[in-house]
Amino acid sequence: MATDTAVPSSAPGYEEPEVDVRALTELLDGKYAEVRQLVRSNLADYASVLDEADELGIDDFRDRVRDIVVEMAATGQTGMGFPEEYGGGGDIGASVAAFETLALGDLSVLVKVGVQFGLFGGAILQLGTQRHHDAYLRDLVTGKLMGCFAMTETGHGSNVQALGTVATYDVATQEFVITTHGDAARKDYIGNAARHAEVAVVFAQLEVGGKSEGVHAFVVPIRKGTKVLDGVRIEDDGRKMGLNGVDNGRIWFDDVRVPREALLNRFADVSPAGVYESSIENPNKRFFTMLGTLVQGRVCVGGAGINASKVALAIATRYAVRRRQFEAASDTEEQLLLDYGMHQRRLLPLVARTYALHFAQDVVRTQLHDVFTEADGPGGGVEVARRELEGRAAGTKALGTWHATRTIQECREACGGAGYLSVNRFAALKADSDIFTTFEGDNHVLLQLVAKGLLTDYASEFEDMDQLGMVRFVTNLAVGTVIERTSAHKLLERVKDLLPGGDQWDQEAGLLDSDYQLAMLRFREEHMLSGVARRLKRGIDDKMNPGVVFSQVQDHVIGAANAHVERLVLEAFVDRMRDLPADTPEGNRVALGLLCDLFALSTIEADRAWFMEHGRLTVQRSKAISREVNDLCRKIRPIAVDLVDGWGVPDEMLRSSDLLA
Amino acid sequence: MATDTAVPSSAPGYEEPEVDVRALTELLDGKYAEVRQLVRSNLADYASVLDEADELGIDDFRDRVRDIVVEMAATGQTGMGFPEEYGGGGDIGASVAAFETLALGDLSVLVKVGVQFGLFGGAILQLGTQRHHDAYLRDLVTGKLMGCFAMTETGHGSNVQALGTVATYDVATQEFVITTHGDAARKDYIGNAARHAEVAVVFAQLEVGGKSEGVHAFVVPIRKGTKVLDGVRIEDDGRKMGLNGVDNGRIWFDDVRVPREALLNRFADVSPAGVYESSIENPNKRFFTMLGTLVQGRVCVGGAGINASKVALAIATRYAVRRRQFEAASDTEEQLLLDYGMHQRRLLPLVARTYALHFAQDVVRTQLHDVFTEADGPGGGVEVARRELEGRAAGTKALGTWHATRTIQECREACGGAGYLSVNRFAALKADSDIFTTFEGDNHVLLQLVAKGLLTDYASEFEDMDQLGMVRFVTNLAVGTVIERTSAHKLLERVKDLLPGGDQWDQEAGLLDSDYQLAMLRFREEHMLSGVARRLKRGIDDKMNPGVVFSQVQDHVIGAANAHVERLVLEAFVDRMRDLPADTPEGNRVALGLLCDLFALSTIEADRAWFMEHGRLTVQRSKAISREVNDLCRKIRPIAVDLVDGWGVPDEMLRSSDLLA
Repeated sequence: MATDTAVPSSAPGYEEPEVDVRALTELLDGKYAEVRQLVRSNLADYASVLDEADELGIDDFRDRVRDIVVEMAATGQTGMGFPEEYGGGGDIGASVAAFETLALGDLSVLVKVGVQFGLFGGAILQLGTQRHHDAYLRDLVTGKLMGCFAMTETGHGSNVQALGTVATYDVATQEFVITTHGDAARKDYIGNAARHAEVAVVFAQLEVGGKSEGVHAFVVPIRKGTKVLDGVRIEDDGRKMGLNGVDNGRIWFDDVRVPREALLNRFADVSPAGVYESSIENPNKRFFTMLGTLVQGRVCVGGAGINASKVALAIATRYAVRRRQFEAASDTEEQLLLDYGMHQRRLLPLVARTYALHFAQDVVRTQLHDVFTEADGPGGGVEVARRELEGRAAGTKALGTWHATRTIQECREACGGAGYLSVNRFAALKADSDIFTTFEGDNHVLLQLVAKGLLTDYASEFEDMDQLGMVRFVTNLAVGTVIERTSAHKLLERVKDLLPGGDQWDQEAGLLDSDYQLAMLRFREEHMLSGVARRLKRGIDDKMNPGVVFSQVQDHVIGAANAHVERLVLEAFVDRMRDLPADTPEGNRVALGLLCDLFALSTIEADRAWFMEHGRLTVQRSKAISREVNDLCRKIRPIAVDLVDGWGVPDEMLRSSDLLA
Repeated sequence: MATDTAVPSSAPGYEEPEVDVRALTELLDGKYAEVRQLVRSNLADYASVLDEADELGIDDFRDRVRDIVVEMAATGQTGMGFPEEYGGGGDIGASVAAFETLALGDLSVLVKVGVQFGLFGGAILQLGTQRHHDAYLRDLVTGKLMGCFAMTETGHGSNVQALGTVATYDVATQEFVITTHGDAARKDYIGNAARHAEVAVVFAQLEVGGKSEGVHAFVVPIRKGTKVLDGVRIEDDGRKMGLNGVDNGRIWFDDVRVPREALLNRFADVSPAGVYESSIENPNKRFFTMLGTLVQGRVCVGGAGINASKVALAIATRYAVRRRQFEAASDTEEQLLLDYGMHQRRLLPLVARTYALHFAQDVVRTQLHDVFTEADGPGGGVEVARRELEGRAAGTKALGTWHATRTIQECREACGGAGYLSVNRFAALKADSDIFTTFEGDNHVLLQLVAKGLLTDYASEFEDMDQLGMVRFVTNLAVGTVIERTSAHKLLERVKDLLPGGDQWDQEAGLLDSDYQLAMLRFREEHMLSGVARRLKRGIDDKMNPGVVFSQVQDHVIGAANAHVERLVLEAFVDRMRDLPADTPEGNRVALGLLCDLFALSTIEADRAWFMEHGRLTVQRSKAISREVNDLCRKIRPIAVDLVDGWGVPDEMLRSSDLLA
């Protein structure tokens, strides 16, 4: 990280850009400016919830959050994604944008909204058919009917295919019998379960005529008002690290009977006579198709992580231009924190990465909207687009939520002791957002999913296999394809085509040339991916146990997926830069360019060891990149506050009056 | 991180060590086994406090914590560091060991102990003279007299020299008048202030006869029972991210008068007639001498961070050998988390680093004990030993507490959703330990202090200058000395002497040769340090503003300090390995050797970009190190639980019954 030469504050001839904050916010808000403003205004109206989170007891706070969610629902904010005929807004992209913006406020409210409208409502909408839509959508859109999404079990989080709850079809009564077999199969961490949900969408192994048909979803009433129904047992998960406005709980089912129509039957059904039928023959494919319709949750959580980061950075950046500490440049006055090089290094690359992730989120939200708005509706759509969406959603979720954890921590530390007081935002931000890296899919598991998608890219018949299947699959043709596709000389050829430098592309291109930056990230991705494929193949060829092979390659697998997603993120930023509206003020153009360069180069810098190890970075060039990162930080320093203000975090959400006074 | 070849699980001929857990604990507990066992037993007796932290309201919990602290004091556990004639144990090392062990439990109890006996008691002991000892020590050792340490102000945390509170000597009444000038000068975040302290040690700018003599400490009564005294205003800091069993508050003084004898006058005094006198002439040196006597707080917090990490790792490691997820190696059974390569990578290098920091903590605790137990007492002692202690304390505190933040986060994520429930330990561990990186000195500021010590090593007359002074000083001779001392060829010469490899020392030495590992870290440290010195000098020679120069070099300064401390940590581990008691079981010897190698190589790996940039690591060797780290992880995997059990965390402190069932 350290650089070897003191460089001037800025290159000669460089002129500091003037940022038009309002225009910047408009650009970032994009086509969803209206719904974002609605959410900002709702957040300001309910700003007292930030205090109530500390002041109320846990049950009162849960009820208060429920009330806020219902009141917000009445403004139309939370129902954007549902069909208009059921009182929704009929705009999936808008619904994600609303959710992202809601993440600027209290995160219990956010997660309660996610549980009710995203998970519960989404399951009814995506896995159910008209009879379910007619029965539930209208009331759930208003929040009159509260529900929960009972998928995760104590024994099984990420591995949904291995759930232990069973739903047996009883042909005599034409009912399903839902049963929890043992404590490992109890539903756990289920939001809305401990207090408010009257209905649960329960995921269970369907058994028909003695045969297991895999995991399916059922609508199961669990509570009438405050009374838990017979056969259902609910236990409160109790206090959590954060999100204590959400009532998570455990549920056991003791032979609970629901009618045959309770099966959410969009992809499979059981006839009255007990015949199982599905339009998707391969059980793995069926399972992943069902799960795939729920991808919106991941898109939402990723966006929430990115937006929670904005709140932390807005506070820490504003604090850093007010707080002075130590006489450094002067005997008589202490120096502002943000004038310290280290402080710039701590905060500004995170600002740049937040911008990059924001634009990447725009891409995945648009893809989601397009795939789910197609004529044949979600679950149909073009196969390739659907798979691309799933990979991108998983990757953006992983990077966006890890970014939140890291950014909030850095910002807290950058605000010192004041950052530790609950009256400022960090305590809640940190505690509430911590679980983002786990829920809607553990980040490591998600990155494996991304890698699987990349490895099986050329063999769609294998796309739906499980993890063990994937490992075995690598003995197959497809790995050869991946290796061939990414062989070193081909890679170099393709990258060379992009850049004027010819054979010396990686030595001669300007560091600030975005083609160079992209080529570097592309090279890393494809090289890592082919390395993974080769290692998997070699292990299998050596007759090693596939699980052992996989275990040994796992960090490499996850590294390759991470490299892939970072490339997508940079691409999103670069594409956006190339496609800025004509009326973008010149200062904003320059400022965004600085951020894009800072993101690209600090990303390369962070992995410069890999680039050196793989011959793509000389020692001199590596050091030059570190110097350039420092220089970019110095250039961004004077406009840092404008850049965080551009995110439009409502002042009420910054709280922190003592930090920012 | 990713490696290119699948290596076998272990080298041929390698035999898995059998760990004797009890013997391991004895080794780690060392000479303080007895006091550590006392603390463990107290922790188990008061294990209910872990529940009470969630269950009680904030004021009840604060009172409960106070009660526990007083009851623990009665066992002798908290007074180890005070002279026996006042009811203490007369053993400073034991007092630190007790504090470290207490960090295995609830951290509000720990911090309350730190405030009362470390900060408040330590200030009376170290800055006061017999009259203060006689007046306060006996009652504070029992906890009958509760006090606080009023140093930090809202406007000034790390920069203690710039405090705004003023103490003016009134010769007419022979009193000091303590005054808070403006809200920035209010004391803030003061533990024990909001509720329990009857007395405060207040740091204020002393003014005598119109002349400012710099910061001094005064004993000021602030409360009688629950009644706040006239002229004193106290405000509750309210809820914090964590540590809510500690009553932090703000204090304003409105011309509060205390007698002349209230000045803690070990290093300076004011005569009745108003003449200021001190045995230390240079005001900077006087200030740093006073502050230097308080070094024990840093040693304690660093040790606490290291021990809090043990709790998190003990839970996550045990969970990882119980929890299965996904079929990987078998169709019928899911794989244990710790059998995944990535999971080993996430946890085991942290286990190794925790061991390394434990041994580094042994060294700094021993130094503290020795310096403060010398005949002429603390503050005297051999100058060089004192300065070495201060640097080492600052460095170990910074690395130990950052390690805690990182480790606790990684362990929470490695326990998934279950890790998020308050009933397990992570919620409290994470929230309570977060501030460790800030209090007792912000970690970045501490590392700058370490660097300053290294840069001024050869010019003791400048040792006590402030930051601006340091920057100016670098134009001076000493930088020349540092540069000369660490010039590249000299460095290589000295390192070559250590290793058999001659000119090729860094290419030919075995990766597992600890001389090689140490030489690498030494080379990095000295090279970075001379680089800092050269860059500072160049900037000054170019007539740049010293503050600007410093700001641009700051990340390099902090990097050099970090490199220095990591070298000290590895040295502590290697020294310990070379000096193991003769009766150490062979299995423990082997196991510790694996950990030492893993710490050394994962440390080099983490900074391998730097080593490549500076010609000390070829690409091949860099990759070989990554492979070796993976191999070490696989070797440690089967003994991982033994290694975390060796820390002797009481089962009651692990809680997490649902995680570990």
